[in-house]
Amino acid sequence: VSKTAQKKQTYGYHDDKEALVKRLHRIEGQVRGIERMVDEDRYCIEILTQVSAVSTALDSLAFQILDSHVNHCVAGALSSGNDREAQTKTQELLEAVQRFAKMR
Amino acid sequence: VSKTAQKKQTYGYHDDKEALVKRLHRIEGQVRGIERMVDEDRYCIEILTQVSAVSTALDSLAFQILDSHVNHCVAGALSSGNDREAQTKTQELLEAVQRFAKMR
Amino acid sequence: VSKTAQKKQTYGYHDDKEALVKRLHRIEGQVRGIERMVDEDRYCIEILTQVSAVSTALDSLAFQILDSHVNHCVAGALSSGNDREAQTKTQELLEAVQRFAKMR
Amino acid sequence: VSKTAQKKQTYGYHDDKEALVKRLHRIEGQVRGIERMVDEDRYCIEILTQVSAVSTALDSLAFQILDSHVNHCVAGALSSGNDREAQTKTQELLEAVQRFAKMR
Repeated sequence: VSKTAQKKQTYGYHDDKEALVKRLHRIEGQVRGIERMVDEDRYCIEILTQVSAVSTALDSLAFQILDSHVNHCVAGALSSGNDREAQTKTQELLEAVQRFAKMR
Repeated sequence: VSKTAQKKQTYGYHDDKEALVKRLHRIEGQVRGIERMVDEDRYCIEILTQVSAVSTALDSLAFQILDSHVNHCVAGALSSGNDREAQTKTQELLEAVQRFAKMR
Repeated sequence: VSKTAQKKQTYGYHDDKEALVKRLHRIEGQVRGIERMVDEDRYCIEILTQVSAVSTALDSLAFQILDSHVNHCVAGALSSGNDREAQTKTQELLEAVQRFAKMR
Repeated sequence: VSKTAQKKQTYGYHDDKEALVKRLHRIEGQVRGIERMVDEDRYCIEILTQVSAVSTALDSLAFQILDSHVNHCVAGALSSGNDREAQTKTQELLEAVQRFAKMR
């Protein structure tokens, strides 16, 4: 990937960047809220419910990034005719899926 | 997908077909083993351990099919230049990943 | 756990035994169905969908066993006053949950 | 649960409170790091790897809270002889496990 001063390489999620940052910012706030709950000795189950909510929010965010990655970066590499690049992208994708699906 | 008497459409996992059937057959046997455990009033935790083992075996099998699917079918569609086929394959793939990762 | 010819030790799921065996038998049939699908060169995504369905069925069965285990075996051990037994049951439970939730 | 000015109700995780807050604070920082990565147009897969790391960290934190919850709150309720309290705690626990294991 060549980078010049004029043109910065961007990726699949680029058009949703602002929305993504906003969602991450909200998740950051949720985590801070859990810190407060622990600090205030709130009930374990309430805390666990909030941790679950953050997990779900992260999963859904990850899926959005994965979706745009497949539709842009992977699709681009596979249709480029560059076999090596295509293979790298495919392999990376499978590893990312394996991590998220916790498939072993 | 045209099917003629001469040539049957096959998919990414085709070369591993025999090994896959064997693995599935072993999983089938594991499930039958759990039936026996329940029937013999075996301890809950031992049964749960076996159910976990079957889940892990299924995940790993699913990942193998997903891997060959991405490397053959999806890669083929994306490099074919057929946009509609490429989009269908991409969408199907993302939905399959979402089901396995239980991302919502 | 003492076992005599007269009285066999049973566990939380005992009353649902028949229903559990039936569910496992159905899952066994689903796995056999997937073997057939592979053998008939069915489309990868259709196979993955069936594997997902079996995974969900196993999860739901595991949860039923876990539920009765907690309500009978764990509850019994914790209210028995036998500290060692209580601790063993608690530890086993947490490990089973960790396996299912794939928490690391 | 009675609360007086003198004595505040605390829960299983109370002794690990400081460590838990620290871990949550680190997770908060990780999320902020991901925001920066998105803002800097970093590569999708690198971002996904970081999201995975946060998910794993949250899971492991949740498991620690669940562990102390079972060993203190649930164990306490089940050995108290208060059937209603025992049943509530058991039910809550199973629901929390179901959420984390994404069992349906």
